[in-house]
Amino acid sequence: MWQHPAVQLGLDTLDDHARGCAILGTGGGGDTYASVLAARAALAEFGPVDVLALDRLDADALILPVSGWGAPTVGIEKLPSGEEGATLVRMAERWYGRAVDALMIGEIGGGNGVEPVGWAARLGLPLVDADGMGRAFPEGDMASMHVAGVSASPAFFADERGNGVVASPQDAQWLERIARALVVAFGGAVAGADHPMDAATARRATVLGSVTLATSIGAALRTAGLDGVLDVTGGTRLVSGTVTDVDRRTAGGFARGTVTVEGTGDDASRGVIVHVQNENLLAEEAGAPLAMVPDLITICDEGSNEAIPTERIRYGQRVVVIGIPCDPVWRTTDGLRIVGPARFGFDHGYRPIEELAR
Amino acid sequence: MWQHPAVQLGLDTLDDHARGCAILGTGGGGDTYASVLAARAALAEFGPVDVLALDRLDADALILPVSGWGAPTVGIEKLPSGEEGATLVRMAERWYGRAVDALMIGEIGGGNGVEPVGWAARLGLPLVDADGMGRAFPEGDMASMHVAGVSASPAFFADERGNGVVASPQDAQWLERIARALVVAFGGAVAGADHPMDAATARRATVLGSVTLATSIGAALRTAGLDGVLDVTGGTRLVSGTVTDVDRRTAGGFARGTVTVEGTGDDASRGVIVHVQNENLLAEEAGAPLAMVPDLITICDEGSNEAIPTERIRYGQRVVVIGIPCDPVWRTTDGLRIVGPARFGFDHGYRPIEELAR
Repeated sequence: MWQHPAVQLGLDTLDDHARGCAILGTGGGGDTYASVLAARAALAEFGPVDVLALDRLDADALILPVSGWGAPTVGIEKLPSGEEGATLVRMAERWYGRAVDALMIGEIGGGNGVEPVGWAARLGLPLVDADGMGRAFPEGDMASMHVAGVSASPAFFADERGNGVVASPQDAQWLERIARALVVAFGGAVAGADHPMDAATARRATVLGSVTLATSIGAALRTAGLDGVLDVTGGTRLVSGTVTDVDRRTAGGFARGTVTVEGTGDDASRGVIVHVQNENLLAEEAGAPLAMVPDLITICDEGSNEAIPTERIRYGQRVVVIGIPCDPVWRTTDGLRIVGPARFGFDHGYRPIEELAR
Repeated sequence: MWQHPAVQLGLDTLDDHARGCAILGTGGGGDTYASVLAARAALAEFGPVDVLALDRLDADALILPVSGWGAPTVGIEKLPSGEEGATLVRMAERWYGRAVDALMIGEIGGGNGVEPVGWAARLGLPLVDADGMGRAFPEGDMASMHVAGVSASPAFFADERGNGVVASPQDAQWLERIARALVVAFGGAVAGADHPMDAATARRATVLGSVTLATSIGAALRTAGLDGVLDVTGGTRLVSGTVTDVDRRTAGGFARGTVTVEGTGDDASRGVIVHVQNENLLAEEAGAPLAMVPDLITICDEGSNEAIPTERIRYGQRVVVIGIPCDPVWRTTDGLRIVGPARFGFDHGYRPIEELAR
C-alpha cells in the first residue's frame, strides 16, 4: 500500500472508487449499486469529500470508522436512507461530548467502501485515507484496529428509520455477538461505527492509503482492464472459465457456500472451487489451494472486468478469478490468528499467494 | 392503590416485599429466589433502601426505571452479578451528563420487583414508591409510561459480564424488538432501564404506591394467608385444585403455554385452564372467562400460599388460583389497546374481574 497526497472524492472519481472497492471486496462488503446511487446524490448536493492522509490530522482528532453490518444478500433490497451516518455521528458526539473530526471507511471492500462517501458528503466531514481491513471480511473483530489492541467499545449502530444503539461490549467477540443480534432485529442490515480512536492511534492501527488505492484500482480497471488491476495490486490471475455450480444460502446473518468455476480457453480442463462466507475465502483446484484468506480472491466478469459480489454470482457466468496479496498486517502472527484459514475452518496452513503462484 | 409515607426496605421487610412481588407477578417477572439472595447480600452490606413517594422528589429529579428482560425460565440458571444496576446507571449518567437521582422498579411483579432493591442498596440510591405496571407483563411497551406518552428512548441494557448497550429506538415497538434481540445475544436475560423521566413526569405516568403495596401484600400473606392478600388487593378466589396438565415451551424469548387446574373440595368437578405468556393472562372455565388480562391472575401454592412462578408450575401441585383487579390505567381505552385480551390473541372482550365474579 502507498500514500497519495490529499485528494478529493467527487462525482468524477466515484465510479472508479466504487469499482476499486468491489475488487477489494472479494465478493463481500455489500453490493456497490445502492451505495453508489446514494453517494452520487450526496456528492451532487453537497460537493466532493476531502480524503486526508492521517498525518494531516492533529494527533487527538477523533476518527469514527463506519461500515455496514449484515448479509450482503439483504443489501440489494433493504435500501439505506442516507441519514445513517448522521445518526452514528450524533450518538458518538453525545457519548464523547465532543465533535467527530473525520470519518474512516471501516471496510474498504464492496459497498462498505462507498456508503461512507455519501455520509461524509452529507455531514461535511473528511474521510481519512485508510481503512480497517484493506479488503472486506465477514466479522467485526477482523479489523486492523483489533490487531493493534484498540478497544471495540463503544460501538454505534443506526438503521434507516433513525433507530440508534450504542454498545459498550467487553471485547470484540461481544461486539460481534451484539452486532449480529442487531442485524437480525433491524431486518438483515445495520450501519455501524466501531473502534473510534484518535488520529495518533489510527496511524499505527489501520491499513493506510486504502481509499486512494481503491480509486487507483478502479481507474486502472477502466483504462487497462484486469491487467491494469493486477499491475496496481501485485495480483495474479487464478483461472478463467464458466460458473458451473453455485451453492449459496443465507444463514445466521451470513451468505455461505461454494462457487465452482470450470476453466475455458487456456484453462480448459481446469476446475476451481471458491469457498465463500460473504467473502471469497479459499480457491482450490483438485484439493490444492491457489489462494486463501487473508489474501484477496475476487471473481470478475469476463466482459466488463468488474468484480461480481457474492449475491450476484450465478450459474453460467463467464468469469476471471484473480488473487491479490493482502496488507502485511494480516500476515503477522496476530493477523493470521484473527483471519487466517483456520479461523474459517479450513485445514490449509496459510501460504501467501505469491508463494502459491510459483 | 394507596400511598404510604416514606419507608425503608431492609432485611426485615425484604421477604414480605418479595412475596408481595411474586403475587403481583402473576407467574412472571422472574423467579424471586435469586433476586432475594442478591438483594439480601446488598442490604446486609450497604444497609436499607429509602422508598420515597414521588412528591418527595424535586420535579426535575432524574428517575431511572430498571427491570430484567428475558424468559423467566432462564432466570433460575443465569445468575446476575449484582453490578448490572451500576452499569445501567453509569451509562445513563454518561448519556445525560448528570446524576441519576433515584431508581424506579420498572415492573413490580416477580423478581423484577426485587432485583432493583439490591441495585439501589449498592448504589446508595433511593427507590421511588411506584412502578410502570402494578404487576408483570411480558413485553416492554406494556408500561404505564407508554400509555402516558413518555418516550421509550433512550433505553439502557447491561449483562452480568459488564457489557452495556444504549438504545435510541424510534418507538416502543422498536424498543421491544431491540431488547428481544439483546436478550438472545446475552443468553436469555438482560438487565434494562427504559423510559427515564423526571419526577414531575413520573407523578402522572406511573402506577403509584406499588412498592409499599407489594410489601403490604407480603405482610398480609404472612399474617393472614390468602384471605389477607384478597383483603389488601380487593381480589377474588377463582378455584382451588390440582394441576393436571402443564403445556409449556420457551420460544422467541417467552415461556408460553397453558396450565390446567382440576378443582378439589368445594370446587370438585370444576376445571380451569390458565393461558400463559410468561404471565398468567386468562383463566377460563368451560370456555367462559373467570378473569383476564390486564387483571391479575396468580397461581398460589395451597400449603405455603406463595405465588408459583410460571417456570415452577408442575403436574400434581395443589394450588389456589386468585384474581386481582388491575390498576385503573389498564382499564382505559389506551391501556386496553396495549394490554387488553386482544393484544394477546384472545377473542374475549375485556370484562373486569369484579364483574365476572358476580
